Amino acid sequence: MTIALLGLPQDNNASYLSGPALAPQRIREALWSDSANMFTETGLDLGDPTIWTDSGNVALEGLTGQSAYDAIYSAVTQRIAQGHRLVSLGGDHSIAFPVIHAHANAYEGLNILHIDAHPDLYDNMLDNKFSHASPFARLMETGKIARLVQVGIRTQNAHQKAQAEKFGVETHEMRDLSKLADLQFEGPVYLSFDLDALDPAFAPGVSHFEPGGLSTRQGLDIIQNFKGQLVGADVVELNPLRDANGMTAMVAAKLAKELIARLVADQDASDR
Amino acid sequence: MTIALLGLPQDNNASYLSGPALAPQRIREALWSDSANMFTETGLDLGDPTIWTDSGNVALEGLTGQSAYDAIYSAVTQRIAQGHRLVSLGGDHSIAFPVIHAHANAYEGLNILHIDAHPDLYDNMLDNKFSHASPFARLMETGKIARLVQVGIRTQNAHQKAQAEKFGVETHEMRDLSKLADLQFEGPVYLSFDLDALDPAFAPGVSHFEPGGLSTRQGLDIIQNFKGQLVGADVVELNPLRDANGMTAMVAAKLAKELIARLVADQDASDR
Amino acid sequence: MTIALLGLPQDNNASYLSGPALAPQRIREALWSDSANMFTETGLDLGDPTIWTDSGNVALEGLTGQSAYDAIYSAVTQRIAQGHRLVSLGGDHSIAFPVIHAHANAYEGLNILHIDAHPDLYDNMLDNKFSHASPFARLMETGKIARLVQVGIRTQNAHQKAQAEKFGVETHEMRDLSKLADLQFEGPVYLSFDLDALDPAFAPGVSHFEPGGLSTRQGLDIIQNFKGQLVGADVVELNPLRDANGMTAMVAAKLAKELIARLVADQDASDR
Amino acid sequence: MTIALLGLPQDNNASYLSGPALAPQRIREALWSDSANMFTETGLDLGDPTIWTDSGNVALEGLTGQSAYDAIYSAVTQRIAQGHRLVSLGGDHSIAFPVIHAHANAYEGLNILHIDAHPDLYDNMLDNKFSHASPFARLMETGKIARLVQVGIRTQNAHQKAQAEKFGVETHEMRDLSKLADLQFEGPVYLSFDLDALDPAFAPGVSHFEPGGLSTRQGLDIIQNFKGQLVGADVVELNPLRDANGMTAMVAAKLAKELIARLVADQDASDR
Amino acid sequence: MTIALLGLPQDNNASYLSGPALAPQRIREALWSDSANMFTETGLDLGDPTIWTDSGNVALEGLTGQSAYDAIYSAVTQRIAQGHRLVSLGGDHSIAFPVIHAHANAYEGLNILHIDAHPDLYDNMLDNKFSHASPFARLMETGKIARLVQVGIRTQNAHQKAQAEKFGVETHEMRDLSKLADLQFEGPVYLSFDLDALDPAFAPGVSHFEPGGLSTRQGLDIIQNFKGQLVGADVVELNPLRDANGMTAMVAAKLAKELIARLVADQDASDR
Amino acid sequence: MTIALLGLPQDNNASYLSGPALAPQRIREALWSDSANMFTETGLDLGDPTIWTDSGNVALEGLTGQSAYDAIYSAVTQRIAQGHRLVSLGGDHSIAFPVIHAHANAYEGLNILHIDAHPDLYDNMLDNKFSHASPFARLMETGKIARLVQVGIRTQNAHQKAQAEKFGVETHEMRDLSKLADLQFEGPVYLSFDLDALDPAFAPGVSHFEPGGLSTRQGLDIIQNFKGQLVGADVVELNPLRDANGMTAMVAAKLAKELIARLVADQDASDR
Repeated sequence: MTIALLGLPQDNNASYLSGPALAPQRIREALWSDSANMFTETGLDLGDPTIWTDSGNVALEGLTGQSAYDAIYSAVTQRIAQGHRLVSLGGDHSIAFPVIHAHANAYEGLNILHIDAHPDLYDNMLDNKFSHASPFARLMETGKIARLVQVGIRTQNAHQKAQAEKFGVETHEMRDLSKLADLQFEGPVYLSFDLDALDPAFAPGVSHFEPGGLSTRQGLDIIQNFKGQLVGADVVELNPLRDANGMTAMVAAKLAKELIARLVADQDASDR
Repeated sequence: MTIALLGLPQDNNASYLSGPALAPQRIREALWSDSANMFTETGLDLGDPTIWTDSGNVALEGLTGQSAYDAIYSAVTQRIAQGHRLVSLGGDHSIAFPVIHAHANAYEGLNILHIDAHPDLYDNMLDNKFSHASPFARLMETGKIARLVQVGIRTQNAHQKAQAEKFGVETHEMRDLSKLADLQFEGPVYLSFDLDALDPAFAPGVSHFEPGGLSTRQGLDIIQNFKGQLVGADVVELNPLRDANGMTAMVAAKLAKELIARLVADQDASDR
Repeated sequence: MTIALLGLPQDNNASYLSGPALAPQRIREALWSDSANMFTETGLDLGDPTIWTDSGNVALEGLTGQSAYDAIYSAVTQRIAQGHRLVSLGGDHSIAFPVIHAHANAYEGLNILHIDAHPDLYDNMLDNKFSHASPFARLMETGKIARLVQVGIRTQNAHQKAQAEKFGVETHEMRDLSKLADLQFEGPVYLSFDLDALDPAFAPGVSHFEPGGLSTRQGLDIIQNFKGQLVGADVVELNPLRDANGMTAMVAAKLAKELIARLVADQDASDR
Repeated sequence: MTIALLGLPQDNNASYLSGPALAPQRIREALWSDSANMFTETGLDLGDPTIWTDSGNVALEGLTGQSAYDAIYSAVTQRIAQGHRLVSLGGDHSIAFPVIHAHANAYEGLNILHIDAHPDLYDNMLDNKFSHASPFARLMETGKIARLVQVGIRTQNAHQKAQAEKFGVETHEMRDLSKLADLQFEGPVYLSFDLDALDPAFAPGVSHFEPGGLSTRQGLDIIQNFKGQLVGADVVELNPLRDANGMTAMVAAKLAKELIARLVADQDASDR
Repeated sequence: MTIALLGLPQDNNASYLSGPALAPQRIREALWSDSANMFTETGLDLGDPTIWTDSGNVALEGLTGQSAYDAIYSAVTQRIAQGHRLVSLGGDHSIAFPVIHAHANAYEGLNILHIDAHPDLYDNMLDNKFSHASPFARLMETGKIARLVQVGIRTQNAHQKAQAEKFGVETHEMRDLSKLADLQFEGPVYLSFDLDALDPAFAPGVSHFEPGGLSTRQGLDIIQNFKGQLVGADVVELNPLRDANGMTAMVAAKLAKELIARLVADQDASDR
Repeated sequence: MTIALLGLPQDNNASYLSGPALAPQRIREALWSDSANMFTETGLDLGDPTIWTDSGNVALEGLTGQSAYDAIYSAVTQRIAQGHRLVSLGGDHSIAFPVIHAHANAYEGLNILHIDAHPDLYDNMLDNKFSHASPFARLMETGKIARLVQVGIRTQNAHQKAQAEKFGVETHEMRDLSKLADLQFEGPVYLSFDLDALDPAFAPGVSHFEPGGLSTRQGLDIIQNFKGQLVGADVVELNPLRDANGMTAMVAAKLAKELIARLVADQDASDR
């Protein structure tokens, strides 16, 4: 039962090969680049082919809205059915709705740990229910999410605050991370990591700069140390066209490596 | 009694439209850019036109020394007289002398919270009493400043140390920020934020790199949490010609937003 | 007995004037640049010519392997014999083998405080015993190093972990720096600072990005506050061709300044 | 009867202050920057306030499609009625439809000299008749254009070739500029300059790179030497977010200066 | 008998995924990017799937010297045998030896039109007969090349001049391109385009800057207008790590498009 | 009688190690970089130590006005007296006054071939007779210059035009280079090359962008082909802080190489 990497080259502008749609390829290049070895910080050797597999990109060229949703949902569902646990590489954050919905249907009582500068809880953004500003509203509306915990938030407006209250979202704003050390979950956990949760100093290759964010180390610390059982994860919103010498792609690859290590560790723990 | 934003497009090189003189325009663009909404982290909606107004730029083209001082001093004094509290956007740090002098004449017992890599306390720099290396020496010489507290300092030389001692300046050097949590003031506080207080990783768009500085989050934390009543503030020394994809302009805009929110909160508190 | 600065313009690619070989010149320019004064954060005036001297670059053009080793070893040994304490400016990390070996022969019971993203402990990298991936394996094999303490490590693989255990290396991985405050040494200490120990946000001008590293302030904090007596130091792996507006050269110059100040302070203490 | 500069901050993405909408401000800054004097290459002193005036920006925030068209059309018509000849600063190329339509209604028998990598003749692009890919199709459909001459074209597809034939467009493709020296017109001429006509080496600050284009000198040469009477002009498609140190903004400002000089010269000739 | 695109991700540094090895992927992205349509300047629609096919990358990871040579030689030979004409995308210029050798064995009396800043005629570079500095010496030694014509040369030293004389190479140096218009060949022609033939203003994304080169338009002009029958071509030495916003990748894609068009035109002519 | 290279690290801002003062070092690095060999385009091997020598930098730190003038004048005079012919590397264009004055006193009837975007003929700029805007006015006032021929000019204002007429300067403006092929001189020629004569596409590393300039090839063509005897030359106004990956430094090095070759060729011719 190996971990599978899955590329989701989608972006909102519906334009092939621009911005986030280029990201899965860039993250793979960083992952395999000679400038680092294949060990995670926790000592797992990702050079071992029995641990994980690259299950390619979902073909999304020309798809938007419902058709993109369907393609992603079924690709994820199929891999879960084959016994994989997944690290998905965006693409923009709109991929979270189909990816996590598929997980919620496979794992009863799914919790979401959502790391982001923005809550992405809009009820209705430009009449597009699949917008990258709304996936977590859509997910809460399914009634299948046990808890949604958001970390790194620093752009909440009145509407999003109301949505958070309506859905019982637990928000850790950047300006007060004092309780972060106690982050713990009962039951399965899905972790969704938007790169703009990080301060733009650490991740310049994103579409929207929101200063005052997490350091890369704080991001890694959450991945490695939250209490609970990780069953799936994604890294989204890399925009290679805004990157500096591939630095943000390296950050995304590092997050992906540690997420794989955490998936393996939690799986092994549950196998015992 | 709304907050007013005021642009002060001045730089030392006396050259029109180069470096810091371009900054007010760039910060406004960042403030209004679509990549963020108009809410502050504390939940204030800056899209509400009753809260603040943009009172434009002071016309400084061709002015230096005393004439620039006079133009800035009278523009600030006039707006304070109209009941505004101001966030001024530099320009280089030489604007602090006229801006804070005008505040000291309007608010008896004014305290200054000065966030910077450099003390800016030179007695005499190149025979120019209005130099951007000297504004806080000039201000202390007026005898109207209750306390000057400096945070983020990491370039103090013997002369500036002597000046700090002569004027009773309280210095929080970067290498020891342990007492920062207790920052508190009696009476009105003016906050002057030089962007090079931040580490150049967070704010590359400044004229002089001084590594080892504050993170943007530490800067925001000071603005949001020092104890005292804020009555005026500035953000200075953005150099757009050195910026990377507008990242530092976004940082300046974020600081300005939170400063407006703090001004509103402290004003409301004092109205009660 | 003044401090001496020594340039070691070497890089692995054996190509004259490319990457790290350009670094000593760039660091000197940053050190002397007008954008800062010559005081250290601890209040020492490096403008005082009795404190330190620049003893130039070792001529390394065309030298590799054993001949480069010999040239560096003898240049360092000679300066130590003349009573200098040295801050060496790399070049890549391969210079650590001859430089520290010379120190170990001059200072009995030498300790090494090694700050780096990578352990550099490979037994054999591409059949090149002088590789920049192996200097600390070579040094431990001499039997002359009392303790090797590594800080900032985040790329340890199984081989390097085995090497660390074999040599009794004390490793402070980035993901757990909790015991760093107690860093203390008996006897003389050599500090070797690889710029990629810093997060690439703070030091983009390095050949290999390894996200999740130290902040510049954390690096300065170690230099200023570890307990023990510093007798020599280096700053290595600046790659000016990857730098952004000279920012990383400024970081290297700042580290060098504080290392000189620490050398002076520890020398004065031992003179008493 | 002075020349008027007019800013048209519009871009297709309908997003305030992103890309081409930022261009008029950047071009003005370049025009007034200290790095050049105000003389044109033909010896006209643009520092003389009787020659031209800056008539500001048309307020386009929030406007798209027909409403943007109307705002631009009426602003241009009004200024022509006041006796001005105009140099308009885009904005993207969609502004050409209202701007040139207004000129065609004011100048009977208007010719268009259109300098661009792309023909912009699409019949229907995404069901948006106001698209920046279609303005010259719309203009030819009015029946009011005497001749449309296109220079620099290097992306003609079958549809656009058919459109060019249908409308009798005269095309000078980049791969054959041999007849360019004879460019001459009877009656009034409007010149529309899309910056991507230039090779991206000369104008990197555009949204779409189309290599193999004109040099800046070739562009200036056309402006200064085509035979005919210039009555209006525009410079469009500067994208400051893609520019390198403001180089393309300087190119746009230079083109605008020489266009003003040509308008003055042709006006003076017709006054005789 | 369609044209085939073939990626050869090889570079001299033998390091996977660094510099030129990344180029085939980047050129494909530029080719398919939305910022241009699929027509060539000569009016051919490359969106027509019967005209050309992408036959993928040759697997070169871990291969150097003879083994890399063999893998490339057999991949090219196989595709020629299947009736394809090829445009190969480097990789560095070392790929020219196996690629053109395969063509020389398939096309008797093959001529080479070689566009480059450097002659690449070294007899022996670092004892590596497969070096990227020597492919054209190797090819001439086979005795199978009818004529080698070099265009754009500006770095000839005494050794390379002697080699050129020995092999009867016809050299068009950059400082005298006066006879270029008469470029004509009897028999089949292979065109090898090194991007550093272009001036670095037009193609900054190369490993070695050699100022004073061709403009992109001059390069396109040679491709479109030399007299003779093109049977194969390559575009080499793109280094994406040195590129500026993907500009050089767009240049490479444009050259590849026009080379496909020329291959189709010459094939059609020979079919008649 | 060898050629001597001379570095003149001066800039107007009187600030040590900023902008043009850094240029001599950068040009030397480019000259010796591995990315090219040491042959000139005309086939001269600059690796031959009997041909030229590097006579170092003139110590200019802290000098301005008359004292800088004197230091440069005497350094140049001394080297000419020793039998050298010089290629001087700026620094800004203010170095032309002392350098060329020294040549005029050594070579009777000296002609100047001045390649620049700007005439640098101001009578009085900011009351500084040594300004970089005035050197050619100062030189003409000496009465020792036979002819001053300017090429590439595109910023002449009324004052400079009057100065040109007063001094009998022959101006080849960029907008009309038709007579350039006939450039010929009687007697000794000094060539002064300001890098901003080139279009900023070719030389981005200059302080002031003036689009519409020469290509690097056109610059080389003038150096290699004007008729007359070259006796001295300079390359000025490189600003490394504005350069892109060292591209403009490579251009300056290339110009310097071809200038050395021309000096050698003209010397050999006169020796016969």
